[in-house]
Amino acid sequence: MVRIAVAGATGYTALELIRILLRNPEVQITAATTRKDGETPIGTIHPSLTGRLELNCADLSVAQITDRADFAFCCLPHAASAAVISDLLDVGVRVVDLSADYRLNDAEVYKQWYGVKHPDPGRLGSTVYGLPELFRDRIADQNLIANPGCYTSTSILALAPLISRGLIEPTGIIIDAKSGVSGAGRAPKQNTLFAECNDSISAYGVGGHRHQPEIEQVLSEVSEQNVDVVFTPHLIPMDRGILATIYARPSTEASEAELMSVLRDFYAQEPFVHVVDHLPATKDVTGTNYCHITLRRTKEFVTVLAVLDNLIKGAAGVAVQNFNLMAGFPETTGLLPA
Amino acid sequence: MVRIAVAGATGYTALELIRILLRNPEVQITAATTRKDGETPIGTIHPSLTGRLELNCADLSVAQITDRADFAFCCLPHAASAAVISDLLDVGVRVVDLSADYRLNDAEVYKQWYGVKHPDPGRLGSTVYGLPELFRDRIADQNLIANPGCYTSTSILALAPLISRGLIEPTGIIIDAKSGVSGAGRAPKQNTLFAECNDSISAYGVGGHRHQPEIEQVLSEVSEQNVDVVFTPHLIPMDRGILATIYARPSTEASEAELMSVLRDFYAQEPFVHVVDHLPATKDVTGTNYCHITLRRTKEFVTVLAVLDNLIKGAAGVAVQNFNLMAGFPETTGLLPA
Amino acid sequence: MVRIAVAGATGYTALELIRILLRNPEVQITAATTRKDGETPIGTIHPSLTGRLELNCADLSVAQITDRADFAFCCLPHAASAAVISDLLDVGVRVVDLSADYRLNDAEVYKQWYGVKHPDPGRLGSTVYGLPELFRDRIADQNLIANPGCYTSTSILALAPLISRGLIEPTGIIIDAKSGVSGAGRAPKQNTLFAECNDSISAYGVGGHRHQPEIEQVLSEVSEQNVDVVFTPHLIPMDRGILATIYARPSTEASEAELMSVLRDFYAQEPFVHVVDHLPATKDVTGTNYCHITLRRTKEFVTVLAVLDNLIKGAAGVAVQNFNLMAGFPETTGLLPA
Amino acid sequence: MVRIAVAGATGYTALELIRILLRNPEVQITAATTRKDGETPIGTIHPSLTGRLELNCADLSVAQITDRADFAFCCLPHAASAAVISDLLDVGVRVVDLSADYRLNDAEVYKQWYGVKHPDPGRLGSTVYGLPELFRDRIADQNLIANPGCYTSTSILALAPLISRGLIEPTGIIIDAKSGVSGAGRAPKQNTLFAECNDSISAYGVGGHRHQPEIEQVLSEVSEQNVDVVFTPHLIPMDRGILATIYARPSTEASEAELMSVLRDFYAQEPFVHVVDHLPATKDVTGTNYCHITLRRTKEFVTVLAVLDNLIKGAAGVAVQNFNLMAGFPETTGLLPA
Repeated sequence: MVRIAVAGATGYTALELIRILLRNPEVQITAATTRKDGETPIGTIHPSLTGRLELNCADLSVAQITDRADFAFCCLPHAASAAVISDLLDVGVRVVDLSADYRLNDAEVYKQWYGVKHPDPGRLGSTVYGLPELFRDRIADQNLIANPGCYTSTSILALAPLISRGLIEPTGIIIDAKSGVSGAGRAPKQNTLFAECNDSISAYGVGGHRHQPEIEQVLSEVSEQNVDVVFTPHLIPMDRGILATIYARPSTEASEAELMSVLRDFYAQEPFVHVVDHLPATKDVTGTNYCHITLRRTKEFVTVLAVLDNLIKGAAGVAVQNFNLMAGFPETTGLLPA
Repeated sequence: MVRIAVAGATGYTALELIRILLRNPEVQITAATTRKDGETPIGTIHPSLTGRLELNCADLSVAQITDRADFAFCCLPHAASAAVISDLLDVGVRVVDLSADYRLNDAEVYKQWYGVKHPDPGRLGSTVYGLPELFRDRIADQNLIANPGCYTSTSILALAPLISRGLIEPTGIIIDAKSGVSGAGRAPKQNTLFAECNDSISAYGVGGHRHQPEIEQVLSEVSEQNVDVVFTPHLIPMDRGILATIYARPSTEASEAELMSVLRDFYAQEPFVHVVDHLPATKDVTGTNYCHITLRRTKEFVTVLAVLDNLIKGAAGVAVQNFNLMAGFPETTGLLPA
Repeated sequence: MVRIAVAGATGYTALELIRILLRNPEVQITAATTRKDGETPIGTIHPSLTGRLELNCADLSVAQITDRADFAFCCLPHAASAAVISDLLDVGVRVVDLSADYRLNDAEVYKQWYGVKHPDPGRLGSTVYGLPELFRDRIADQNLIANPGCYTSTSILALAPLISRGLIEPTGIIIDAKSGVSGAGRAPKQNTLFAECNDSISAYGVGGHRHQPEIEQVLSEVSEQNVDVVFTPHLIPMDRGILATIYARPSTEASEAELMSVLRDFYAQEPFVHVVDHLPATKDVTGTNYCHITLRRTKEFVTVLAVLDNLIKGAAGVAVQNFNLMAGFPETTGLLPA
Repeated sequence: MVRIAVAGATGYTALELIRILLRNPEVQITAATTRKDGETPIGTIHPSLTGRLELNCADLSVAQITDRADFAFCCLPHAASAAVISDLLDVGVRVVDLSADYRLNDAEVYKQWYGVKHPDPGRLGSTVYGLPELFRDRIADQNLIANPGCYTSTSILALAPLISRGLIEPTGIIIDAKSGVSGAGRAPKQNTLFAECNDSISAYGVGGHRHQPEIEQVLSEVSEQNVDVVFTPHLIPMDRGILATIYARPSTEASEAELMSVLRDFYAQEPFVHVVDHLPATKDVTGTNYCHITLRRTKEFVTVLAVLDNLIKGAAGVAVQNFNLMAGFPETTGLLPA
């Protein structure tokens, strides 16, 4: 039995994480933290868990977490996360970090995009980026995995096959991404109120979203060249799901069919990535850990389209893939059949 | 030219009010207040007003409002509203109050439902309730009108014809009401976040919503008997609109057709209330000041169904009806053609 | 290995059924029918099944179904369903019927509400109604189970504890029910287009919905008295979920706490029904086979509120409960953990 | 009094058109056509018009239309529209055509994209494209105006200022466009059902949407060079609204501020186009004839963002602008104040 702590258990990602972990009879969720005072039943925080998990959330110290758990999922805000994780690792708790804290390799870049000094810069650069489709071999024996961002996963899964084989130009790539509102978190903000988002669409963070350097870093690593993207996120009136519509310039004469073959070959053995012929909808993968990808040749561009559920394949699901690899469970445990 | 102040200009109702008032060339919006520090352009608060109204919102004092305006619409929270209104009336500014402060006749009942002592109890009982379809004759010469609640208007418009003619039993009336999320206001709260409300429905305030005593008071007055209702509000994943599904017991043998005739006769001359044969949808009246009503005989009950736009006929639109009556404009100014 | 046919595989219920059955390694979906010509891959009909199930849908004859399957789920329209089922039963295929065909006990009542002569009247009255929470003991050895309607399940689960113990009056019960649009099926109709339903709510079939006699029949049977309800369905702009808000008159002086105890005791051993203290939202149970119920004492009424996912606990999930009981699997197989 | 016919009155665009025209006391809607048999009250087709317009829809002949109207708005499907319009023009009825029939200059291009031979090729090339912001001077004295497509208007309004001044490269422009579902019309189709579109997003017609040649034709004309765009439409779970996110390569060193100035100058006198500093949301312009535009410099691209209401500024509103110009009313009649 693996005893698990969920640090920062009040948000949407934590809820999905708990739902998935409850499907694995060999793990037990033994701790859940919140910064709120007192003890709050998890079913009060997440009514959908009523009758499914008896556990109180509380503002637990690192010592209390360590006492109860062998493994922690950190769903805390950036900076807060690294502060806790550093302590957890010191006492032997293994961690999947769902914040952005250990994704970027460079503390300066981190500071530039996140506006704060990194609390644990020594681990940057050596922490493995937890995208099993690209870095599976490095994950199992780690004590800390940096779980990818949701936009990032979508974009990387869509582009990695083509860019790593030199089939598209590495610069001037346009990623026009669309996300459901759950991606903005559960803390009350005016711009994520129902009456603001419903029946409307808008772009945000044009040219300045934090997932852009993350995408560039990973794709540069994968393709061993400098990759440069323009990333535009949009808020869509839906709960969950990301669609990335990506425009790249082919660097060869490869036909649409040939490029599709490259995608299919790349993901042939992957349990969670399906290359599809049709234009995918986010709803096709809602509530699952799947990513669906296709592409089209459109004039001088190749248009790649990828969808996933931002809370699952874009967060909690891939976190469990990483956990399963680290803990020695089959990678699909709790995730398949969907 | 009537100079108008909007007190509490940052919410959804204020926005609708401004949109409607901009259609009357003989009024000018000269003041808009917010409790936020500094001067904020109205187009920053309500991006849809960009290029349509040049006006800064600020935390204006009563003296500043008085200086700029002859007439005020108060969109402030309850209790805060009465505190300001009392001062405005003293210096001769006429007011339509969109809060609940002057709707109930009794300061004790107010305290019981709103949890605070009424700041201006002396005006309770003598303030006219601003539902022109019932109290038109009393509105024009008032200096203060209590604008009705949104659930209240829907329920009263649906029930008044039958209850005032003694065609339904005055007790045991069930009002199952459904409202769009804008009714909960624009202040950030977790339960009105998009990802909480979307694709979901729930009841709230079962048996304890503040519009229940208001409905009972007005219907009792209209029918000169003690009216008793059970009121259940629900939150619907839509921006705006209220549907009230009302179950009452007929007190006569009147047929469905006869009851429909009563509705039609009652509202025959009303510009904003349409009695319809079909089952109305809230979308039929979205963005307008109309109310659509129908009824069905269902076993031992009569089921009355009414829809309106909670922000317009349920708030800003009826406020402008009241204003038009008070200021001597045709009642439909700014509201028709829709 | 149980070989399974899904008759009428193109709709939303069939999709949920397939998803659930794929989680049981001891069953195999071997046939899926559609009235469309030719062979269509199931992944073309339901893109979310891409890569999860390799199976072609076709217009299979009863002989072809019999050849491939031991067990059939019928998701056909009413009347069409009974015509097929009668033949399937004759050759020994066991059936859960998700249509309305075998729910009512009386062929005359069926004709009155469904407008057609029943194709297989001989089985009416003896077919077991597949609501395991009430009729579990009778299900296992049946060859045909009538799966309940979605509104029906919600209403019956909410009312059965109180009515069977004589705690509420059996007549004048008002069921104000709200459903997501998937309940109206996947066949293109103007009134279920996105641009018609979105951001709107309306009632439909007031006083004349087919689930009303079904509710009355089952509650009458359970309570051994004549039960009479007024049922009003509403279309809510959400994919799935039903909320029933039910108003009944208590027949005793029982307090709210005492009535809640009755609910809790009634469902104490049930894996899928949770009695909750809070007011439940449909989203709390979306994608699961759970039903959440609570109640409130409101003046002279008791208001019972129940939510479930119309496609799962209201259709495919309960169908799998029935199947599991019939096939000898644990009742929760494929359904828990959710 | 101008007597007006609406040919094809059952769809969403026709409804908006009627709503707008009802605000002009000097016009009268005297005919409305549908291909359905018999006479159907307009309030049955569009419940929101109940009590607002007394008119029956019928399958009127050209002679009947001519008899009743001086002016026609054609909201018919492509090809059907040109067939009727040709006859209407012959007898002196002036027309705004909301179909695509007279937008393209070349009958061969029309056939390639619309799959049918053009019914009235002689008028192609000489019919004025009804985008008043670009072609106002040519509209007033026409008898036929080709009303622009909704995606087209959004894209052209966003790009015209920059491309006509040579500030962006004319090729390799990417238009990633997002539209509400009403753009797909009111005819029942599975892919526009609520339960298909809600809570989901997908691209469609990638590289092959009919508005692409229209955008290229008009921008080429405006900039007197060959303009080439890649156009990707997406279906958004909202009723109405279009957001175009456009990526172009600057051809000068102009800064973001300088490019913004160009936009502002270009539209300085336009009543319906506002250049805004913030990132616009479609909701900012819902229900109005406004278009909001902004831009950002993002690495080697300029990203232009534009929003409008596809049914109003993208269809019925601009049609009324054209009508007003043709009929001698102020261009903003019925449209401002919004």
